[in-house]
Amino acid sequence: MTADINPSKTADAPIHDLLSKRYSPYLFEAKAVESEKLATCLDAARWAASSFNEQPWRFIVATRDDSAAFATLLDCLVEANQSWAKNAGVLILTVAKLTFTRNNTPNRVAEHDIGMASANLVVQATALGLHAHQMAGIDMSKCRHTYGIPEGYDPVTAIALGYAADPAGRDDDMAKRDQGARQRKPFDEWVFAGKWEQSAGI
Amino acid sequence: MTADINPSKTADAPIHDLLSKRYSPYLFEAKAVESEKLATCLDAARWAASSFNEQPWRFIVATRDDSAAFATLLDCLVEANQSWAKNAGVLILTVAKLTFTRNNTPNRVAEHDIGMASANLVVQATALGLHAHQMAGIDMSKCRHTYGIPEGYDPVTAIALGYAADPAGRDDDMAKRDQGARQRKPFDEWVFAGKWEQSAGI
Repeated sequence: MTADINPSKTADAPIHDLLSKRYSPYLFEAKAVESEKLATCLDAARWAASSFNEQPWRFIVATRDDSAAFATLLDCLVEANQSWAKNAGVLILTVAKLTFTRNNTPNRVAEHDIGMASANLVVQATALGLHAHQMAGIDMSKCRHTYGIPEGYDPVTAIALGYAADPAGRDDDMAKRDQGARQRKPFDEWVFAGKWEQSAGI
Repeated sequence: MTADINPSKTADAPIHDLLSKRYSPYLFEAKAVESEKLATCLDAARWAASSFNEQPWRFIVATRDDSAAFATLLDCLVEANQSWAKNAGVLILTVAKLTFTRNNTPNRVAEHDIGMASANLVVQATALGLHAHQMAGIDMSKCRHTYGIPEGYDPVTAIALGYAADPAGRDDDMAKRDQGARQRKPFDEWVFAGKWEQSAGI
């Protein structure tokens, strides 16, 4: 499989800076995020589209200013994620409401819509000089128990939000990951037309 | 339930224009999207984050320049969506790969990650003067049959992409929907701290 490594070289016109500058850091500076910046990031999330404007997202937030609350949420991550996420300014647990409020039927795209809200949050974070690193690696039953998440709602991801630390001059694995070339599949492998796996020629 | 109607009034600092200007139009101008703009939107999608960089997204695209292909994809939407999506410049069917390629285990966040890629596409579209309207309302079995989508992959959404038409001077239902006040839940109803449904005070 081939892969492109530079977002500015993959279409005739480059993608927007807010998208190309985004990456998911392992290295965060251990400092707080200003509360007004956090509010703006959350505001961005809720203006995402959702099926029937259900807004199926529920976010549980813990800021490092509140060390007990932060430790509680950190403990809901799998260990490999705790090792770096401990330096984030904010931890957010995203939770999906699995049914539509209007008629109590299953919302097939609830988790998809959590993804859209989370992506909006990340765009806003980037605009504010912040970075985010999203994790599927959470202990779902611990999340449910710790916060009393009821039936009908599922934890989906955690988001570490904060100020990325400069990896320059470090040679540990996490610094290497933050400095490594980012790769994505070429269009031929995922953009189809007419039938499955037939390249759209983009 | 109360709701806010103006994104610029809901946090101390406004969210980014690329997020606040976004809406999901019912009225599109019946004209093509330039191929280089489509490529840039797709490029934006693939630079989204995904779990283990799996990039579980597969997109099937049909442009209105190719009327037969466009009609085929339009026919995969539920009828209520066909009535307005027929004017879009491009229709895109999003499909999720349900397992990780690296080890063939289930990817719990595949549909979530489709949402993130789709949101990136929408941000880029907005930056290029385009709008997108995403739909859960698709005929999943018709999608699967029409395009030969194999086991292990699920259709997720369709995206109508194009130039929004000005609703001014029209009084049909779709123009009213495009001009209506947009509403979102106040933070207290979805941003929690410490325990479920305990407001984070954002």
